[in-house]
Amino acid sequence: MTLEYYSNLMLPAIEQELRKAVAWVQNYDSGDLHEMLIYHMGWSDDGHAQESKGKRIRPLMVTLCTTAAGGDWHTALPAAASVELVHNFSLIHDDIEDNSPLRRGRLTVWKKWNIPLAINAGDAMFTLAHLTTLQLAESTSPGIALQAAQLLHETCLHLTSGQHLDISYEDQDEIALEAYWPMVQGKTAALVAACTELGALAAGSDLNARQAYHDFGHSLGLAFQALDDLLGIWGDSALTGKSTDSDLIARKKSLPILYGLSLQGNFASRWRKGPVGQDELPEVAATLENEGARAYTQNIADRYTKQALEALEATRPESQAGQALQELANQLLKRHA
Amino acid sequence: MTLEYYSNLMLPAIEQELRKAVAWVQNYDSGDLHEMLIYHMGWSDDGHAQESKGKRIRPLMVTLCTTAAGGDWHTALPAAASVELVHNFSLIHDDIEDNSPLRRGRLTVWKKWNIPLAINAGDAMFTLAHLTTLQLAESTSPGIALQAAQLLHETCLHLTSGQHLDISYEDQDEIALEAYWPMVQGKTAALVAACTELGALAAGSDLNARQAYHDFGHSLGLAFQALDDLLGIWGDSALTGKSTDSDLIARKKSLPILYGLSLQGNFASRWRKGPVGQDELPEVAATLENEGARAYTQNIADRYTKQALEALEATRPESQAGQALQELANQLLKRHA
Repeated sequence: MTLEYYSNLMLPAIEQELRKAVAWVQNYDSGDLHEMLIYHMGWSDDGHAQESKGKRIRPLMVTLCTTAAGGDWHTALPAAASVELVHNFSLIHDDIEDNSPLRRGRLTVWKKWNIPLAINAGDAMFTLAHLTTLQLAESTSPGIALQAAQLLHETCLHLTSGQHLDISYEDQDEIALEAYWPMVQGKTAALVAACTELGALAAGSDLNARQAYHDFGHSLGLAFQALDDLLGIWGDSALTGKSTDSDLIARKKSLPILYGLSLQGNFASRWRKGPVGQDELPEVAATLENEGARAYTQNIADRYTKQALEALEATRPESQAGQALQELANQLLKRHA
Repeated sequence: MTLEYYSNLMLPAIEQELRKAVAWVQNYDSGDLHEMLIYHMGWSDDGHAQESKGKRIRPLMVTLCTTAAGGDWHTALPAAASVELVHNFSLIHDDIEDNSPLRRGRLTVWKKWNIPLAINAGDAMFTLAHLTTLQLAESTSPGIALQAAQLLHETCLHLTSGQHLDISYEDQDEIALEAYWPMVQGKTAALVAACTELGALAAGSDLNARQAYHDFGHSLGLAFQALDDLLGIWGDSALTGKSTDSDLIARKKSLPILYGLSLQGNFASRWRKGPVGQDELPEVAATLENEGARAYTQNIADRYTKQALEALEATRPESQAGQALQELANQLLKRHA
């Protein structure tokens, strides 16, 4: 397992870089703001912190891509930390926006403190991400640091655009199938593409190589989201778990649901009649599957997976790290499968 | 009026730079996100936009300081726009955090749309600020752009620290007089100090000059806040206006109130008995004044004003722009007086 080797090597250094970044807030008199950030990151000594830490997949993609692109992954640590901080900033704000009381089995930040403090803690986390990016000026070069900052800010703008669409769609009964893509490109794919491109950038790659790494992350992000949407209806916990686990009950604008609506068939008729109950779940899921929505979604996921792996190959990665990236991609795309 | 001359010269260019920055979000498919930002900035064609635009004092301080430091103010426009965007991002989030329905006579963003969309719009505005800062690489140099980004991020971290304290204090019946300063240094002074220092930085000033400009802004910010707190109790609208205009009724942890509490006298006894009613306002304000809180606050405001003007003089500003900065400082500190 090449991935296991690299994970054991890189993850402790990534965690250390993250702790260093978050500690920055202690330069100011800020009450328990640092404690809020520590809690969210899963470093609190509350017995549940370890499980709630997150897998740090995004920063690992950064350092793996730097190695694959022929660079020294240590120099990319500020970029790795910064994408993870952006991800976590967005989780803090998303949890407020979605009114989610729990994340990975613990109270969300806004639920444990309150909404005003949580909005502000997210802003602080966002700022720490940007401060950390600039550390690339020391580990790589000022020119690379500036390009990385530009890339990360553009990514964040894309992220907020996707998030805006996602929130807006909630109030709309129906949206067109095409409206799905700008939302997930912003919400999911943009940050994964930034991870892989930042990894290449830290290695000093040229524009062509950066583009290939970007494409790898972008396609991987889209494949991941399509599969996530598929599992949100036909995954074990969606079909048999709590009702909140099924996108059919949550009325999420996911890919199979929008596809089913676009067909104007039995699924669409049932959907328009109102909320789907827990007892109807297997039947409605079967209707949607019979109309081809599962195959359609799987097909799209497969297509993007293929594109991702082709883009990775096009980067001509340094062999061991390239293999680890392939393993990581497969792991992401085959979970629950 | 030198200030008037410079305002007429610089404000249209600042506004244009701001519009260019905000338009960036249109590079992504983002529904009405752009419209939300336009609305907040006061550019909507809704009949009330002009009054709600804000005075753009902070960006004007940037370009004035660049001129005063011997630079070409046009090169500082990205820095000027970015501080105004940071200020406006913080207003969007503050209005949610403070549950404020109105800002300058119009509905706040969260009230006009909703809280989830407004949190996200604030995040977008914050991101636009950072993207704009990086434009300094073109107008000045990559080195200055990196230093400016570092300065602005540190400022934002200070800002969120101060905001955290401010929100935290709301739930506490009483806080010590000393606890006032870390809050206002973060909430108010940090961004003003960033404006003046960024102005000098864009002019290519050395570290000593940057520090002097920083001190000017820092002291000015503190003087402004102390006076604002004074007017929050003894200003015309606080004494005679709607009850929400008085910090005594809003139970704000302002400087004169914390001073009065620290004295443990008649004001403190009255305060601890519970909310102050509209009819008691003149009496409670008089008690506080008799105990010396008004003179104490005025004295602190005067001291910081003096420090600010001394710091400005220490920069040996280019004569005309220096005069305009002095006018601006006096205008800020003498409003309502």
